[in-house]
Amino acid sequence: MPDANPTACLLVIGNEVLSGRTQDANIRFLALGLGQIGIPLREVRVIPDVPETIIDTVNEVRAKFDYVFTTGGIGPTHDDITSECVAAAFGVPWEPHPEAWARMERSYKPGEFNAARQRMATMPRGATLIDNAMSVAPGFQIGNVYVMAGVPRVMQSMFEWLAPRLKGGKPIVSRSVHVSGLAEGIIAAPLGEVQAKYPDLDIGSYPFYRPIGNGVAIVAKGTEPARAEAAIDEVSAIITGFGKVPVPGEPEQ
Amino acid sequence: MPDANPTACLLVIGNEVLSGRTQDANIRFLALGLGQIGIPLREVRVIPDVPETIIDTVNEVRAKFDYVFTTGGIGPTHDDITSECVAAAFGVPWEPHPEAWARMERSYKPGEFNAARQRMATMPRGATLIDNAMSVAPGFQIGNVYVMAGVPRVMQSMFEWLAPRLKGGKPIVSRSVHVSGLAEGIIAAPLGEVQAKYPDLDIGSYPFYRPIGNGVAIVAKGTEPARAEAAIDEVSAIITGFGKVPVPGEPEQ
Repeated sequence: MPDANPTACLLVIGNEVLSGRTQDANIRFLALGLGQIGIPLREVRVIPDVPETIIDTVNEVRAKFDYVFTTGGIGPTHDDITSECVAAAFGVPWEPHPEAWARMERSYKPGEFNAARQRMATMPRGATLIDNAMSVAPGFQIGNVYVMAGVPRVMQSMFEWLAPRLKGGKPIVSRSVHVSGLAEGIIAAPLGEVQAKYPDLDIGSYPFYRPIGNGVAIVAKGTEPARAEAAIDEVSAIITGFGKVPVPGEPEQ
Repeated sequence: MPDANPTACLLVIGNEVLSGRTQDANIRFLALGLGQIGIPLREVRVIPDVPETIIDTVNEVRAKFDYVFTTGGIGPTHDDITSECVAAAFGVPWEPHPEAWARMERSYKPGEFNAARQRMATMPRGATLIDNAMSVAPGFQIGNVYVMAGVPRVMQSMFEWLAPRLKGGKPIVSRSVHVSGLAEGIIAAPLGEVQAKYPDLDIGSYPFYRPIGNGVAIVAKGTEPARAEAAIDEVSAIITGFGKVPVPGEPEQ
């Protein structure tokens, strides 16, 4: 799909996803949320809590994509190093953010806003805050990099605050059809012709295996609903031509 | 954690994960499976079905990591381009693989081994096959790049075949403890001291939010079980020192 829309890259920062300790839940949420505001996600990198890796990756992808979102590594513990690494990537000091500091100091009992928690109010110079309804610790933006929490419900709250403030493009819409008892290998050739005819769409073919039967789901995504519908209509006609029944939408899970 | 073990990078290839259509299920499976054979996963990239992106990324990461695993894009349809892109990355012809071709030709009825399916038996010159119990279409290896299916149960079957054939290192072991009613921000400082004392381990701190209460789980990972146990014993003592009860293992989901 040609990128008239702005593009996004997501950095999932944390050893816990790479070790398999944690099943990632942020990629899909952000992929869908960004698609809805017309900022399609074009790459995801899952990287460890290693300073050089974080710094180098931030610098590579912020030059390459319009938006960079990060999740993870902004808590109070030793393995939370995203914030200082982003400062290093931008070559700016990492210093107390007055508003974040004031908010956090207010929210703790006297003596409990300790050095570890103060790190959560320490940010790259020039950062602006990303609020959230779940936690007093904010995320932040610097340049085209948006730094969010890794805990899904906190990240989601940050993204809900952020989404209407981002300059997006045309929402990505999706149309789909599926069929049981027809193999991908049979419809591959005519399907390729539909893709060639609709270069503005991403047409994907996804086999499924269900107790009720195997089959394939065809999904067309793009920014023009009428185009996606027209492409799926053509795919439905192909399915009918093979003597099978096209069923609108994706198969039930 | 120092990498005496060989390292791995996973490329998840496919628009469906980037669009949010599909919840990835391969990262965690491979992270755990690779950890068990001592080939820790050090980076994951999710990339779209775009030839230049696949070719450039394969070439970048195969130089950087000991092992590269890919999932997705080896089916029969127009969006399945991983195989020819890997051939291009290695600068070798993409041509029928005699054994894969023979196996697939045998498995289809006369006339059904069509051009689309023949693409699944077409591989970079020099590739060796990765078998699986789920499907007649094999994955393949070329150099340090292992190309597998994207459908989780097929990928898992390929990895089960592959794992005992890979030259791994010491298995990654994990020990953990959790506590309710104690905040990360309170134990962050002493926890950082434990990490500093055990530089051979990855010690992670993960807050949790459960109906029964909030708390934090501490996980130590490394190649020496006794070291991970000793570190977790120290963390347990820290928790006890704050008047709380350390509970072995991770919190129940």
